[in-house]
Amino acid sequence: MAESPVESAVSSGSRAFDDPAYREAVVDLLAVIAYGELSAFERLADDAKLAPNLEDKVALSAMAAAEFGHLQPLRARLAEIGADAFLAMTPFRKPIDEFHEHTAPSDWYESLVKAYVGDGLAADFYREIAAYLDADTRDLIITSLADAGQSEFVVDRVRAGIAADPRLSGRLALWGRRLMGEALSQAQRVAAERDALTALLAGGIDRPGLDLAAIGRMFNRLTERHAERMARLGLNP
Amino acid sequence: MAESPVESAVSSGSRAFDDPAYREAVVDLLAVIAYGELSAFERLADDAKLAPNLEDKVALSAMAAAEFGHLQPLRARLAEIGADAFLAMTPFRKPIDEFHEHTAPSDWYESLVKAYVGDGLAADFYREIAAYLDADTRDLIITSLADAGQSEFVVDRVRAGIAADPRLSGRLALWGRRLMGEALSQAQRVAAERDALTALLAGGIDRPGLDLAAIGRMFNRLTERHAERMARLGLNP
Repeated sequence: MAESPVESAVSSGSRAFDDPAYREAVVDLLAVIAYGELSAFERLADDAKLAPNLEDKVALSAMAAAEFGHLQPLRARLAEIGADAFLAMTPFRKPIDEFHEHTAPSDWYESLVKAYVGDGLAADFYREIAAYLDADTRDLIITSLADAGQSEFVVDRVRAGIAADPRLSGRLALWGRRLMGEALSQAQRVAAERDALTALLAGGIDRPGLDLAAIGRMFNRLTERHAERMARLGLNP
Repeated sequence: MAESPVESAVSSGSRAFDDPAYREAVVDLLAVIAYGELSAFERLADDAKLAPNLEDKVALSAMAAAEFGHLQPLRARLAEIGADAFLAMTPFRKPIDEFHEHTAPSDWYESLVKAYVGDGLAADFYREIAAYLDADTRDLIITSLADAGQSEFVVDRVRAGIAADPRLSGRLALWGRRLMGEALSQAQRVAAERDALTALLAGGIDRPGLDLAAIGRMFNRLTERHAERMARLGLNP
């Protein structure tokens, strides 16, 4: 059976780190995920204050704590490959902080939708990129993005909210589109500034990359999964 | 060898729950600890925003996440003994929320001292009470209050801050005394309102309790340990 391009990239994993550009891209990627999870922790812990009762507050706080729990293995891996985690995270503070500033939830339902749609979108995006990496890095990324099932709580609460007040649905649908737009605009900014990351996607001499058509297909997949999540919440994508 | 009063209370643990007043007191105690840890999580996650850099922010956030991690076993135990955790926590929201409102840190150093001195004091107090409980409850409480060593970070940062600006020491010493005073005043309020808890400390027919002299000695021990923590931070108690 012929190896897929992704499989051959993976099997050359241990050699991949000999290429300084590859290592730099992996440092960037682990760092942006780590800072994203640290920020998600902060925002979810903050948004938990909007919860209508103690049970819901604990549920959102549990999502916050789970995000923080993913940070340690990413830091450990960054240290292993000789990078300073805090230094590596620094370039990503501004775009991620701005994403959160531009998408500060104005109520409990907006914070629920953001937790579900925003984190889902980020996770899909990083998983797409992880497919082009060595097996160890890919596994670490996939584990870091695992959802421990708390998001079922969000689906339940948002659907109940819409059932109680159908007007909520239109407002939250707009909110979901705004989250997607802000996420794309910050992602483009990161792509424009971090050459190693974009070069990683473009591939190298012995590593297959994404051509324009493949990038187009990737964005289609991301958009489809975003629409599925919106539908699960009972919202028009 | 003669059994100590505490040992005999512990060995009668399984019978203890037949006494509705004992069960009610344990529910109160687990619930106040649980709500205290949920609040500590919220406040530490909030205070982490005051951190001067990303590394310190992560360290305080790790303390927050550790507090949240203790919540689950307490909730599980409350469910086991047939109590609704969220209902059980409700009477403790006001005193604990007020403690935090009255002790909102005005800067990073105040938040560090609060994390160390406030949590230490609460942990000492609950451990003192745990000595009068059945073995299972006592072990659960002691585990819930374990410090995963993150507080060494606080000692390091506060001492470095005082070395850099010796005037900090006087202000933080006052702050530590204020934390102690606010904690005592809210604890008294809880004691006045929760009869089962105070009855627990007073003992029962087959359970030894604390007489006034023993309560005095307990407060002495709490004060001494508070003074030791202040000294470790380089502060006059």
